[in-house]
Amino acid sequence: MTPWQSYLSEQDLAVIARGKFGRRMGFGQRPAVVVIDAQNYMVGEHGNDAAWPSSCGEIGRAAVSAIAQLVSAAQERAVPCFFTRFELDPNGADMGVYRRKRDLLNSEHWCLAGTVGAQLVPQLVPGPGDIEFVKKKPSGFHGTPLLGYLVERGIDTVIIAGGATSNCIRATVFDASSWNFRTIVPQEAVFDRIPISHAISLFDMDRQFADVVPLAQVLEYLAGSTPLSSRCSSPESQAGTGPSAA
Amino acid sequence: MTPWQSYLSEQDLAVIARGKFGRRMGFGQRPAVVVIDAQNYMVGEHGNDAAWPSSCGEIGRAAVSAIAQLVSAAQERAVPCFFTRFELDPNGADMGVYRRKRDLLNSEHWCLAGTVGAQLVPQLVPGPGDIEFVKKKPSGFHGTPLLGYLVERGIDTVIIAGGATSNCIRATVFDASSWNFRTIVPQEAVFDRIPISHAISLFDMDRQFADVVPLAQVLEYLAGSTPLSSRCSSPESQAGTGPSAA
Amino acid sequence: MTPWQSYLSEQDLAVIARGKFGRRMGFGQRPAVVVIDAQNYMVGEHGNDAAWPSSCGEIGRAAVSAIAQLVSAAQERAVPCFFTRFELDPNGADMGVYRRKRDLLNSEHWCLAGTVGAQLVPQLVPGPGDIEFVKKKPSGFHGTPLLGYLVERGIDTVIIAGGATSNCIRATVFDASSWNFRTIVPQEAVFDRIPISHAISLFDMDRQFADVVPLAQVLEYLAGSTPLSSRCSSPESQAGTGPSAA
Amino acid sequence: MTPWQSYLSEQDLAVIARGKFGRRMGFGQRPAVVVIDAQNYMVGEHGNDAAWPSSCGEIGRAAVSAIAQLVSAAQERAVPCFFTRFELDPNGADMGVYRRKRDLLNSEHWCLAGTVGAQLVPQLVPGPGDIEFVKKKPSGFHGTPLLGYLVERGIDTVIIAGGATSNCIRATVFDASSWNFRTIVPQEAVFDRIPISHAISLFDMDRQFADVVPLAQVLEYLAGSTPLSSRCSSPESQAGTGPSAA
Repeated sequence: MTPWQSYLSEQDLAVIARGKFGRRMGFGQRPAVVVIDAQNYMVGEHGNDAAWPSSCGEIGRAAVSAIAQLVSAAQERAVPCFFTRFELDPNGADMGVYRRKRDLLNSEHWCLAGTVGAQLVPQLVPGPGDIEFVKKKPSGFHGTPLLGYLVERGIDTVIIAGGATSNCIRATVFDASSWNFRTIVPQEAVFDRIPISHAISLFDMDRQFADVVPLAQVLEYLAGSTPLSSRCSSPESQAGTGPSAA
Repeated sequence: MTPWQSYLSEQDLAVIARGKFGRRMGFGQRPAVVVIDAQNYMVGEHGNDAAWPSSCGEIGRAAVSAIAQLVSAAQERAVPCFFTRFELDPNGADMGVYRRKRDLLNSEHWCLAGTVGAQLVPQLVPGPGDIEFVKKKPSGFHGTPLLGYLVERGIDTVIIAGGATSNCIRATVFDASSWNFRTIVPQEAVFDRIPISHAISLFDMDRQFADVVPLAQVLEYLAGSTPLSSRCSSPESQAGTGPSAA
Repeated sequence: MTPWQSYLSEQDLAVIARGKFGRRMGFGQRPAVVVIDAQNYMVGEHGNDAAWPSSCGEIGRAAVSAIAQLVSAAQERAVPCFFTRFELDPNGADMGVYRRKRDLLNSEHWCLAGTVGAQLVPQLVPGPGDIEFVKKKPSGFHGTPLLGYLVERGIDTVIIAGGATSNCIRATVFDASSWNFRTIVPQEAVFDRIPISHAISLFDMDRQFADVVPLAQVLEYLAGSTPLSSRCSSPESQAGTGPSAA
Repeated sequence: MTPWQSYLSEQDLAVIARGKFGRRMGFGQRPAVVVIDAQNYMVGEHGNDAAWPSSCGEIGRAAVSAIAQLVSAAQERAVPCFFTRFELDPNGADMGVYRRKRDLLNSEHWCLAGTVGAQLVPQLVPGPGDIEFVKKKPSGFHGTPLLGYLVERGIDTVIIAGGATSNCIRATVFDASSWNFRTIVPQEAVFDRIPISHAISLFDMDRQFADVVPLAQVLEYLAGSTPLSSRCSSPESQAGTGPSAA
């Protein structure tokens, strides 16, 4: 059973059937993992969430375990992992119109540059070929070098984890699928503060823009993947020869 | 009462209060209207919706009336309106990864280039300063010239209407607010096939990325606006002088 | 001898040697051809160029022959070709800040939508898998769906032809290499109105952003390439299997 | 006399006249300054340039004085300044296809993150409202938050300084004018390693994409500008009122 099934009516299901929505994109040949905002400020602290204004609490901490499994499986197969961190300047100069929507909170437990809140959660450690970078907006693609990193690595499948499902995950999913990557969301590895926003976002994304699947299915896929290093030759070895069949 | 209130629990409301989400962006000085995919294939035909695979039915047609009011109010004040049309080549070459998610339907009533389904609904007619353009992806900004059009006109406020709320409206809202425009969604002027997706998308957007407001409030704002033509001098008259106070 | 050699001093060559500029990117495995603005208004008419305000004259027409060879070689190997057309609305609404820099010319022989000037030159005919699209700005990537088309096809090498070298070619080369595609410019297949702008642009691009090479080298590369159709399996056949080695 | 005049033939001038190229964009109402890669590695060290592989030498150091004047004039009028720094990870993971074109140099005097070479030159100090950020590609817009910063501040005029003229300046100019900003290049405040690349790039940009003007003209313009702070009201004071005339 999907996380959203209980929210839907008979009529909703009929609409989906008529439009032929929700086929599977399927996995491609060259995956990458993109971990969105898996930072301390997003998951808070057991027993002390009230001190972390944007914490997603236990739900976030459970997802972090799933994300750690995903990252670990990817790193074992040399599948590249990208880690975004949402970070704002304490002076507010880079916050943009979002500052009209929300206060710039003066807290070590939020996403201000230089604070503990803005750091990656300790369970996640980028590997040698991985890249960590800052973003200023919901999507991991917006105003960042992410897309170029994926193009260079010949990625065709983007596996997206992190939070929050209805904000940054969703924006990143829109962009990944709009750039024509097969877009995969392992459902246990994304999280949100609001249960209904989480469930309905998963439903909406699965209908049109991504495959929302159990983490186990993604782990199985990664386990069967050939390490990227053996598929991608180095700059030196590729230069100047004709494009023979892959 | 908002369209989403009935879906939220006490706990959800507490989370929102702790995070200080959902302030008002407010309207700025130079608005534009962006109408997303208000095309025949999205709203179908009274009594014959079964023949239109992506029709949003009566809900869509009611929203079209609201959109027509909005556009008309904008055009009266020379507020520029931009109309996107989602259009696919019948040969599928431009469909991208979406083709893995959904069939390319062979129907005059879908969004294929050259069909009646792909045309703007007849109630909407672009005015002399307005621009209609094709998009290939959910967001009105993705792979289109929209952002440059807004920059050139000095727009600071983007009013977004059309459908579907949980797909193209939401993607366009993410982009508009990520580009730092004040982003306004008149709630009667957006529509969706799935009621819960509609309501929860409005809730999610209003929390962080846009002001979701009654259409009446937008009409009042537009009525009070100074026509753009008197605010924006022509290319000829602006060249080469110093930047005097606005 | 390169087209720019005669313009450089000993000192210039020393600077280049110290910075270790100008290595070869080399060709990759999956090429695409991007033809920029190979339209009637760019190449005019033999004996009548005075009637075509933006014509590049004989230089342009010679390049069109080279472009036709390139496209033909690509189409034979099912290497996808993308054709941009620069097109402006006769009412000027979409011209942007460029209108301050240059008049909107009221001529059938310029780039206005619907005129003969805006059409592709007759020597170039898009094939079944090719895509032709309109752009509003110098780069073929700016405000267009091109990047997504390349991502979907797994392209790693972009071969850029058309004109003008110092304007639209150069802007497209900047974008292609910034998105991390190997970027190739066949020197006979690009053209410009101003000889020194042409030569120095080729030099600048070759130093940092592209390999500027003889057309013959590109044709040889394409002749050795495996048709894309046999490398890319269809959506149906790829779904859901593990990523085995390419 | 312009910096490029001596390079042009009679025929070149006739082509320009026929195409009606090279009008003035003129200055707008809300300027911003964008300083590109004014970093130590770009300008080297007097008497020791051989130790700085990408140094532009005296030419770069002279331009830095001009840039400092420009920035100072802007800061006095509260015109926002944005400073890009081109920075690469010493492990090469973020270098992309550029790595095929050029070696990753292992030097403290190049642009590696954490080295003295990657720092802004000491003559330039961002002010309280200014923003400094890293870019990975030639254009200051590519994969960075710059465009959103400009939109949020209602900028209509982008003054571009720094280096190198034929690489990063030119790429940034293409993007600024493609996004429909009036684009201004103060000719003494940009610099390049190669004199002819510098001159011809200025010529090419002035013809179509920017006004290349003496620094004195920009300083005069800035001196006549109203401080941004008095033109832009704060978030608090703008919310919710109708858009009165500017």
